[in-house]
Amino acid sequence: MIVVKIGGSQGVDLGAVCSDAAALAAQGHQLVIVHGGSDATNTLATQLGHPPKFITSPSGHTSRRTDRRTLEIFQMACRGVMNQRVVELLQAKGVNALGLSGMDGRIWEGARKPAIRSVEDGRTVLIRDDFTGTVDVVNISLLQTLLAAGYTPVLSPPAISLNSEPINVDADRAAAQTAVALKADSLLLLSNVSGLMRNFPDESTLIPTVARHAVEEIAEVAQGRMKKKVLGAGEALSGGVRRVIIGDARIERPISRALEGAGTVFS
Amino acid sequence: MIVVKIGGSQGVDLGAVCSDAAALAAQGHQLVIVHGGSDATNTLATQLGHPPKFITSPSGHTSRRTDRRTLEIFQMACRGVMNQRVVELLQAKGVNALGLSGMDGRIWEGARKPAIRSVEDGRTVLIRDDFTGTVDVVNISLLQTLLAAGYTPVLSPPAISLNSEPINVDADRAAAQTAVALKADSLLLLSNVSGLMRNFPDESTLIPTVARHAVEEIAEVAQGRMKKKVLGAGEALSGGVRRVIIGDARIERPISRALEGAGTVFS
Repeated sequence: MIVVKIGGSQGVDLGAVCSDAAALAAQGHQLVIVHGGSDATNTLATQLGHPPKFITSPSGHTSRRTDRRTLEIFQMACRGVMNQRVVELLQAKGVNALGLSGMDGRIWEGARKPAIRSVEDGRTVLIRDDFTGTVDVVNISLLQTLLAAGYTPVLSPPAISLNSEPINVDADRAAAQTAVALKADSLLLLSNVSGLMRNFPDESTLIPTVARHAVEEIAEVAQGRMKKKVLGAGEALSGGVRRVIIGDARIERPISRALEGAGTVFS
Repeated sequence: MIVVKIGGSQGVDLGAVCSDAAALAAQGHQLVIVHGGSDATNTLATQLGHPPKFITSPSGHTSRRTDRRTLEIFQMACRGVMNQRVVELLQAKGVNALGLSGMDGRIWEGARKPAIRSVEDGRTVLIRDDFTGTVDVVNISLLQTLLAAGYTPVLSPPAISLNSEPINVDADRAAAQTAVALKADSLLLLSNVSGLMRNFPDESTLIPTVARHAVEEIAEVAQGRMKKKVLGAGEALSGGVRRVIIGDARIERPISRALEGAGTVFS
């Protein structure tokens, strides 16, 4: 079992990812695909006159301000467009793909944060109407039912809260939870970078391998969204996934290349 | 088995439909929900600067001009927003709803029209880049797998073509095909009207019952979108569905009321 998370950033070659997924599926590999949709959400939110906002926590983490309207736009971009685009590309290659958000069949359930802290003009304020959270439980039974029946699940945020509200969750970490729950052999986090670099974006500083005990230390060098990937990698390894690879989705055969060790391999 | 198609027009009370669906599910009824999203698509398309266009066929039928960008907007509105809203409302009432477009797992497969005829300024022109078609095959096996596992499917266009392209299909007729394939006892077509009227919108001319042999004749009085509902009703009856009810989704207990005979009952 391989869980493949695809980023939605500029440069990612969805066609190449889906062709490769189809080739691997034809060889008998079981795959679960996970994707986000941050970049498409930003574009659509701007087009719809509700531009994206980001929150910086007191500890310095940045996250999307997700009010109810942002959530709806996020669902349009992520669930409406990117998910269905991946399903279409996979179907066209003969893979019986089936898209689900974390809400569908409560695939990804978790707690909504009751309030989040945001640093604004040096002051910390509490925001109570934000729809964000984490994936705490993966509906394995549904995934196994679909996989056994020959479908390839394509999963996307949002997740569903205990009160059945949609909640924005980080797709890298949701993919990690999914890989753990499915006892996957490998988790691939593919995006528009070649891997984790000591000095981003200097590719000569690519870190080829990270041992399990060094994950926390290496997390220090990760910038921006890469922080979440390294966090997800650590969570997956702790949960029993054999290896996690942060790899490149801009190239041909991106899944196979990552499985062959291209990128940064955590094990 | 009851197939419930919900319209997306102004006035439809999704909350009431979902509460009633949950009450019926709790009594042991198996439900499949189908919805469209025309009105939301029109609004979103206008907001995104790609306003809706409609085509009139030589025989006088009106349909949406569905170029690739319109399809994407349709997926945002239909799959991204309305489908997930219905899933959320059902989940909040304790129904383990699971949204799928017709593309997911090839639930609704059909032929894409190679070209459509459009009457423009009195001339008939051929349009070849339109993504429309009909549902020819319903993936019963997937629906039965989900129903057996306790999930309530919430289905929405687009369908998938034989070449795996998304195709815009009429949701009323797709619901009829689904009811036939599932050998449903009842198909409900609920929207923002109280039923089929001899002189729309004069409610005193509501037609309470239509016998199977009179469907073609009664189709003559149907206006606009109601034509497709009557067509769907006829297709469902011909395919073995015991009764079809065109009913009101603006009221409390809209499903139960229709099952009790409110609206126009075809049998």
